[in-house]
Amino acid sequence: MCKKTEKDYFANRRTIRSFMDQPVSDELLTDLIERAAHAPTTGNMQLCSVVVTRKPGTITALAPAHFNQPASVGCSAMLTFCADLNRFEKWCRARDARPGFENLQSLMAAVFDAVIFAQQFVTVAEMSGLGTCYLGTTTYNAQMVADILKLPERVVPVLTVAVGWPADEGEDSGRLPVEAIMHFEQYNNYTAEDINRLYSGKEAREDSRRFVAENGKQTLAQVFTDIRYPQSSSDAFSATFNDFLRKNRFI
Amino acid sequence: MCKKTEKDYFANRRTIRSFMDQPVSDELLTDLIERAAHAPTTGNMQLCSVVVTRKPGTITALAPAHFNQPASVGCSAMLTFCADLNRFEKWCRARDARPGFENLQSLMAAVFDAVIFAQQFVTVAEMSGLGTCYLGTTTYNAQMVADILKLPERVVPVLTVAVGWPADEGEDSGRLPVEAIMHFEQYNNYTAEDINRLYSGKEAREDSRRFVAENGKQTLAQVFTDIRYPQSSSDAFSATFNDFLRKNRFI
Repeated sequence: MCKKTEKDYFANRRTIRSFMDQPVSDELLTDLIERAAHAPTTGNMQLCSVVVTRKPGTITALAPAHFNQPASVGCSAMLTFCADLNRFEKWCRARDARPGFENLQSLMAAVFDAVIFAQQFVTVAEMSGLGTCYLGTTTYNAQMVADILKLPERVVPVLTVAVGWPADEGEDSGRLPVEAIMHFEQYNNYTAEDINRLYSGKEAREDSRRFVAENGKQTLAQVFTDIRYPQSSSDAFSATFNDFLRKNRFI
Repeated sequence: MCKKTEKDYFANRRTIRSFMDQPVSDELLTDLIERAAHAPTTGNMQLCSVVVTRKPGTITALAPAHFNQPASVGCSAMLTFCADLNRFEKWCRARDARPGFENLQSLMAAVFDAVIFAQQFVTVAEMSGLGTCYLGTTTYNAQMVADILKLPERVVPVLTVAVGWPADEGEDSGRLPVEAIMHFEQYNNYTAEDINRLYSGKEAREDSRRFVAENGKQTLAQVFTDIRYPQSSSDAFSATFNDFLRKNRFI
């Protein structure tokens, strides 16, 4: 069965932030996760776990960690993908092997495993007709997420995916032209003219203009630097995440 | 056109480490990258870039950064996926916006964007019949990779994908049972019995037994801790990557 051709799917996929009441079954989620788990993983160590939240009470408890963004409040399930050294280290210790993974490279390997796994899940889920939305706020409030999901030490929540049956078609958010993100042979650093050309389409979009006007800014970039990702909050969330990583002996 | 059903593809995909001489065209790579770029990205900022290496001389120069592993030596193209704040910050500065991204959370967002983009590329490429292999060594020798690819400051190479037309079918590397990586509602921490049960299939595989024997070890876990990822080298590569991130003002 091929619901959508891969060409159609990849070039046209959209993030969904609004979901129907209809639940997503444990069986479907398990099947999708099982298929996604065939994605590549560092040295086949599978340094990742996913915690599936379906109880409405737990979704409600987790939503504030994601600043109650609409997808976090209205989803049928929330999947928290974690960089997980706990399981692998338990296995090592049970087999007379001394794990040496309390360092930055082991964190990176586990983060790669978790993100690759998450993205494979998103693709499998979307190709099966589900809607998904990443919540990039997981590392902002990692301790809160860890407490609610009872994550043990050495498990770091990295990305959350809100899942449900789509209530709308989503919006075409647009992307930079491919030449903006692809370099042949060497990184082709951008001139001022390149920047103007590559971002002109994004800046000309109607939703971008509305975004600038609604936020009372002069440029779209100012919406990102002043409103969405101001340095003060990025620095503060970085400090708490740094503490979390240190407490979990990754740095 | 649907070459393989998504069900077949996802549950049966295999990493390919051996490639035919037949080149992969710039046109095909550009098309695949363009489609992959519709993958989710943090706040639609696209904090990532990919550098495509096809010149044999440059592939040969990069291979030592990946310890000359077979896929790095024999591939048709090497794609280095980078966490890229450089382009976004140039845009901000050109638009009277002051970027506040010299911190850990901005690094995480850019790493997520790069890894999601890389994995979407892998899926699109594999579904188009190409073979791929991640080189997880990119962060080990980030400075060497950055020098060869002329990466400017604020661009961190995170994962490399070796690409080519498959010369073999790859091997079924196997995965832990899905219950090992999936938790419902709360993280279900593993008992000693769980660890035995969940890893028994992996340990019983013929290739695992051969791996243990060839390396003169008692257990499979010891191959990982003593041979493949010994603490001394993980610690050393962590220190150099830490320096690289510091020099690039992410931590």
